[in-house]
Amino acid sequence: MNFLSVITYSGIFIFALTGAFKARTYRMDIFGATVLAFVTAYGGGTLRDLLIGIRPVNWVNDNIALVLVLSSTTITFLFKLDYRKFRRTILITDALGLGLFTVAGIEKSLLSGINEFYAVAMGVITATFGGLLADILCNSVPNLLKRGELYATACAIGGIVYVALKHTSLTNNINLLICIALIALIRFVSKWKRVTLPEI
Amino acid sequence: MNFLSVITYSGIFIFALTGAFKARTYRMDIFGATVLAFVTAYGGGTLRDLLIGIRPVNWVNDNIALVLVLSSTTITFLFKLDYRKFRRTILITDALGLGLFTVAGIEKSLLSGINEFYAVAMGVITATFGGLLADILCNSVPNLLKRGELYATACAIGGIVYVALKHTSLTNNINLLICIALIALIRFVSKWKRVTLPEI
Amino acid sequence: MNFLSVITYSGIFIFALTGAFKARTYRMDIFGATVLAFVTAYGGGTLRDLLIGIRPVNWVNDNIALVLVLSSTTITFLFKLDYRKFRRTILITDALGLGLFTVAGIEKSLLSGINEFYAVAMGVITATFGGLLADILCNSVPNLLKRGELYATACAIGGIVYVALKHTSLTNNINLLICIALIALIRFVSKWKRVTLPEI
Repeated sequence: MNFLSVITYSGIFIFALTGAFKARTYRMDIFGATVLAFVTAYGGGTLRDLLIGIRPVNWVNDNIALVLVLSSTTITFLFKLDYRKFRRTILITDALGLGLFTVAGIEKSLLSGINEFYAVAMGVITATFGGLLADILCNSVPNLLKRGELYATACAIGGIVYVALKHTSLTNNINLLICIALIALIRFVSKWKRVTLPEI
Repeated sequence: MNFLSVITYSGIFIFALTGAFKARTYRMDIFGATVLAFVTAYGGGTLRDLLIGIRPVNWVNDNIALVLVLSSTTITFLFKLDYRKFRRTILITDALGLGLFTVAGIEKSLLSGINEFYAVAMGVITATFGGLLADILCNSVPNLLKRGELYATACAIGGIVYVALKHTSLTNNINLLICIALIALIRFVSKWKRVTLPEI
Repeated sequence: MNFLSVITYSGIFIFALTGAFKARTYRMDIFGATVLAFVTAYGGGTLRDLLIGIRPVNWVNDNIALVLVLSSTTITFLFKLDYRKFRRTILITDALGLGLFTVAGIEKSLLSGINEFYAVAMGVITATFGGLLADILCNSVPNLLKRGELYATACAIGGIVYVALKHTSLTNNINLLICIALIALIRFVSKWKRVTLPEI
């Protein structure tokens, strides 16, 4: 396993934990929490793969993914983790996950012959639509669509810069780091300075 | 670009506007409005393509579609369009869009080897499920399923007539016009005479 | 038509009826009820086929399925069936349907090269996600995810036992019967003794 997949699996674990936490907020049982953890971690990539036409979708037969999702639910259940104690950690790891998922979504899309505009859109979908699907399962208006801090916008800007830098002589690794740093920066500034998109 | 695609893109633009208007009703930000515009315009065709197995789904790499959806959101945002001022226009253009989308869905399905019963169903899905998915994103019971004026029913009747007329010697263009006129007629009569389906 | 498809179609009819009943609870019209019946009966298998990449999805061009779903809605409408009078019957037929759908989902997944862990997951999805999708359409938190009697858990246990028994010298038919009996048993015990999963 290479460096990139280690970090990607970390992102998956973080996203799965977020899903399990959400299930606690909605007082679901451990089966519901497992579904929510899975959907949060894999929903975005699944939608991307369905739209592009990759089959089977990425996580099928990936036993590491299965173990990570089940662990996230088990840990949340056994230790009755309190989301509020980890807010700062989650903000940072979530921003890292967003960056990695955005780039992973863009690269996979470009490889499938998707053009650059739609590849950025697929990157944003990969990073953010898992949480949106989980919100739908919880019967709440997806946070992603409501007015609030920059989230999908951060991914979109990071993704556009990533695709633009691919036309320069920068290596993909440096490009990846710039994209992740940019997304994290926008997230943190948006959080601290309460920057939001205007209402339609 | 031929006559049919001009009208289809008009339909897409109208459906995208409807989505952007809905986002305003739910006080979403401009990102949420863009998602809703896209889902309203393309959700039905996307579901049809997924079910039939066409990949990638129809709108991927279609830059005109992207521009139309982004324009619909931009216009709604800049001019703070008031939905109520355009009610009559929207009723007419929406009816036209319904007819075109129904026929487009039927033709694409028949080409993929779908039988005539399911082709009509796919036509109805193409025309109406974008709005249904947008309603789900807004966390409301889809209008399509609630008791109200004839909407999917109009598409179904128009679609059945269209498929039946394909067995006659009429050309596809005349057939298309009859189908659109019939769907529009049912929509207008349902609206003005308050015709509804019975409750289950 | 063989014995297995007779029973499978019975399961589909029962699931479609459940969907039509749900539409009555939410006061939908007959079109909404038809959509809900279809989604309840076919939603789980559709999601499985999409994830695995089988296309078109299983029910397309299946006219028997179409007739069964339309019949379930028509019967519910004409006789204004009262769900509460059939509770015991539905509990039994639903348990039978769960078992058949779980096994059908597992077998189809294994045939497509899905590993045994994911095949069980696909079996559970086949059996239970139709109802979940119908709940989303009704804008309610899916029953499946809320704390309550064992439902998906019954399918998961039955599915694990089924896959384990495939490694023995038992024939598939006996294996199928054991799986269905086990799922039904867990469902009945959970119902009567109010056994639930712990909250996350």
